[in-house]
Amino acid sequence: MRVEIWSDIACPWCYVGKARFDKALRDFPHRDEVEVVHRSFELDPGRAKDDIQPVITMLTRKYGMSAAQAEAGEDNLGAQAAAEGLDYRTRGRDHGSTFDMHRLLHLAKEHGRQERLLDVLYRANFAEERSVFGEDERLVELAVAAGLDEDAVRGVLADPEAYAAEVRADEREAAELGANGVPFFVLDRKYGVSGAQPAEVFAQALTQAFGERAPLKIVESGSTDGADACGPDGCAVPQH
Amino acid sequence: MRVEIWSDIACPWCYVGKARFDKALRDFPHRDEVEVVHRSFELDPGRAKDDIQPVITMLTRKYGMSAAQAEAGEDNLGAQAAAEGLDYRTRGRDHGSTFDMHRLLHLAKEHGRQERLLDVLYRANFAEERSVFGEDERLVELAVAAGLDEDAVRGVLADPEAYAAEVRADEREAAELGANGVPFFVLDRKYGVSGAQPAEVFAQALTQAFGERAPLKIVESGSTDGADACGPDGCAVPQH
Repeated sequence: MRVEIWSDIACPWCYVGKARFDKALRDFPHRDEVEVVHRSFELDPGRAKDDIQPVITMLTRKYGMSAAQAEAGEDNLGAQAAAEGLDYRTRGRDHGSTFDMHRLLHLAKEHGRQERLLDVLYRANFAEERSVFGEDERLVELAVAAGLDEDAVRGVLADPEAYAAEVRADEREAAELGANGVPFFVLDRKYGVSGAQPAEVFAQALTQAFGERAPLKIVESGSTDGADACGPDGCAVPQH
Repeated sequence: MRVEIWSDIACPWCYVGKARFDKALRDFPHRDEVEVVHRSFELDPGRAKDDIQPVITMLTRKYGMSAAQAEAGEDNLGAQAAAEGLDYRTRGRDHGSTFDMHRLLHLAKEHGRQERLLDVLYRANFAEERSVFGEDERLVELAVAAGLDEDAVRGVLADPEAYAAEVRADEREAAELGANGVPFFVLDRKYGVSGAQPAEVFAQALTQAFGERAPLKIVESGSTDGADACGPDGCAVPQH
């Protein structure tokens, strides 16, 4: 079974939702048969790489909140994170473009390090003092900590088109699947779970989708007398 | 809709089957909504990189055919290819490991060049005089002809582990889906088509799978009062 998770590193509910989903997956009896793929979604796709602001400032300017409202929201999110055992800095975090991080997550996917890099990026963004925005060296350091090859990481950061198509394809697919926000979980392209639901909801979705896994329906041809295919024992010889 | 196609460059029926599928797809009214992904399958996964033989020799040694039988099989396959407008050398082709080609096809996927590289590799293997086996320079030349970056190609060939995990994951998935031979076509993980079926069978499968596309079923939680998610308009504030 395959679970695809659309999320953004700058999305607090994605950080919290991942912890809740991970908990449900850890307790899922068939967890070894579940493949998780992380997909890109930028909450702020138009933001320039050098356009960095403190989160509180961004919230007041972009959404017209008062500073007190913005701070209360962060406090609430911090409490939700704490309830999942996650560190969360409610003051002093930055907001910026996550495009490069998504590109690196695609590089990491090719090397089996996607999950680890995502955890490293979440932690760095939400819990560590040093900003994840504005400095390529910071991303190099984080990606290397997640087990990626330093030269490969530098290569991706130096080429703005590397994995850019993959990020955009993920985002297009999210729109096609009807996701307007994140986190967004898709199980076997059949069930969707929107938002950082409680672990029990993820557990229920996993159970339901797993129970409904269906073998492929093989489309048979009435007009041919067997499959024209090659296998470990050689190729079929044409009969017609 | 997504069509995944497992195939091997050394598989004549995959070469023929791709032409038949491509014909069906070209005529399919919703072709713009179909995403095609090529997946790896090695007919001869244990073969060492330097173990190269003429196809006819391989057929007689591995499958115990007489040379006349092996040649007749190749003639038959050549006729099937010709019927699809494909060139096919019935004598003098080599057989060898396709692992490096599959690794390059994964590199190509990251750059939107997978389809093109696969066509280039098929043509080179089945129709061109110069062998595709045994020489990295030959693969560099072909991959560059398909639009890949030369340094990136050399980097993959120089590192035997680059994209190796992706090749093996594709092969594992084929086994899980019940594919014992190739080509093997999977539509939206719901329908399977085994072998180089006539274009009409692919057309029927495309129509059927497309007609049955279903929107995601959203798993709702009874206990929460709305999705804890972030979107373009900001993040939900915790209510509970």
